[in-house]
Amino acid sequence: MKNNEEILDLFENYLAQIQLPEEPQRLYKPILYSMSGGGKRIRPSLLMLVCDAYGGSLQDALPVAAAVEMFHNFTLLHDDIMDNATVRRGKPSVYASWGDNVAILSGDAMMIYSYRMLHQAPPAKLHRIMDIFTTMALQVCEGQQYDMDFESLQKVSVVEYMNMIELKTSVLLAGSAMIGAVLGDASEEDCRRIYRYALELGLAFQQQDDLLDSYGTQEELGKRIGGDILEGKKTCLMLNAMSRATDVDREILRTAHLNESLSDAQKIACVKEVYDRYDIPHLINQQISTRFDRALSILDTLELASERTEHLRTFAQNLMGRKK
Amino acid sequence: MKNNEEILDLFENYLAQIQLPEEPQRLYKPILYSMSGGGKRIRPSLLMLVCDAYGGSLQDALPVAAAVEMFHNFTLLHDDIMDNATVRRGKPSVYASWGDNVAILSGDAMMIYSYRMLHQAPPAKLHRIMDIFTTMALQVCEGQQYDMDFESLQKVSVVEYMNMIELKTSVLLAGSAMIGAVLGDASEEDCRRIYRYALELGLAFQQQDDLLDSYGTQEELGKRIGGDILEGKKTCLMLNAMSRATDVDREILRTAHLNESLSDAQKIACVKEVYDRYDIPHLINQQISTRFDRALSILDTLELASERTEHLRTFAQNLMGRKK
Repeated sequence: MKNNEEILDLFENYLAQIQLPEEPQRLYKPILYSMSGGGKRIRPSLLMLVCDAYGGSLQDALPVAAAVEMFHNFTLLHDDIMDNATVRRGKPSVYASWGDNVAILSGDAMMIYSYRMLHQAPPAKLHRIMDIFTTMALQVCEGQQYDMDFESLQKVSVVEYMNMIELKTSVLLAGSAMIGAVLGDASEEDCRRIYRYALELGLAFQQQDDLLDSYGTQEELGKRIGGDILEGKKTCLMLNAMSRATDVDREILRTAHLNESLSDAQKIACVKEVYDRYDIPHLINQQISTRFDRALSILDTLELASERTEHLRTFAQNLMGRKK
Repeated sequence: MKNNEEILDLFENYLAQIQLPEEPQRLYKPILYSMSGGGKRIRPSLLMLVCDAYGGSLQDALPVAAAVEMFHNFTLLHDDIMDNATVRRGKPSVYASWGDNVAILSGDAMMIYSYRMLHQAPPAKLHRIMDIFTTMALQVCEGQQYDMDFESLQKVSVVEYMNMIELKTSVLLAGSAMIGAVLGDASEEDCRRIYRYALELGLAFQQQDDLLDSYGTQEELGKRIGGDILEGKKTCLMLNAMSRATDVDREILRTAHLNESLSDAQKIACVKEVYDRYDIPHLINQQISTRFDRALSILDTLELASERTEHLRTFAQNLMGRKK
């Protein structure tokens, strides 16, 4: 059984040897640029770790893992157009470098290419894997649409928000894990359990992302603290606070980022003061811990010897930045 | 064996009963709008006609035909963004009605949905069909990229142009036909022949489209004559004329549409005068006839009794607007 670093190495080496056509250059160069631009390879790693835990063939898993990573990068390419995001992983986004038409079309080609790589799955498993992949891909689109819809909605409930992030981000992690289980010939029950493990983990990760944006250190976050507050983003902190706040406090939460008499630091302090008063950081931290513990406890229910789930535990801890 | 009208009926009825999710509305409504917006259903019809000619199951063919039509409509959705096209089939385009973000994301969902429908192909044939479908889908993206590249190129050769339209439009017709042959259990040789039949037909159709734009009647074309000339588009007429013209005439071809001292009618007359002098309409007409005849003659080489290819002949004649 390979550990997380070995899996990542194997995957990077596989990616590096994929040959895309050279022409037309403006179609394929952005794909190479996007795929070689780093990223933590979270989804393909998990897919391969799960496959390996069940004793499946990592050679079979590699092209499928690449399909998942290609799909993920395709969503980033198109999201960057929709969000007018000019920077991705510290470099100019494809959208910024080549313009929106190239980003649209290269993204399209990436999505099709992800099916080309999926097509290399063992033929006997292709039908099943394609089903999981396609379902999760559609859900990601649904999540992205809800996310855009929410921007212009006055009121979004916590439940709606959690559903949105489940679709937009967790489902891709969960589907990847499940495909790994299918490749490892896990039982139907274990496929579902592995899906659930990754889904909980994905939700915990996303909630932690929200929490760190307001309460992390700049070092943990990799960017300046408070960005979500300054953008007036509907995060799980904001929506939980909204649902608990008095009318007066709710008005503060809603309008602080628009208040031109406040500096950025004051806006952030003002919103966090309300969060603190309603104990929001503690509440979200509890939810994260509950989800994280639930994910780990699902591993105990798998039809696998506990030593075979060791790397899946480490994966979860690494993802959440937690020590063993 | 069903004739072209019966096949079309069957397909429209199948499409009409497809249920898409209701939410999120801004993701799925544009898909319904696009799919119910008419169109000649050329590609799914051909797929089903070929399948039927080989005695394949039309029930098996229906979801695959729908996948091809969904993919085609997805390309239109994204092309309309890239071309800033506000009208599609006489109605506002999705891009014009909902904006570019919705058009990007709904288009993405359509492409994924086309794989969902493809997934309903008979499992034993899924691997092969997915391969043909994915290859043709990538080629369509390549064709679209070349088409965009050509707009800003000074010089495009006739060969490059024919390669571009083959990728951008013919390959989708040819791949659809080939998938129909696979569904009908045609031999490998016949699959290739059917592909070639549809490829030649697609090229003839595209060249005829170019020809009608300058030399058709408004009734045949469904829009005003001369649009390509006024846009300065690199059509097969223009590129063939360019390759034959003297330096002086080439300058006229290159600049007439930009000449502000000419009315639209004068610009059109000016370019057509050069075309006529080099006998371009006659030349293109010959190429169209050669391709059309070649397509029909391929039908004679199939491992099928000639009466089974009757509807494929009619399909070709209908597509080209030719009487028997």
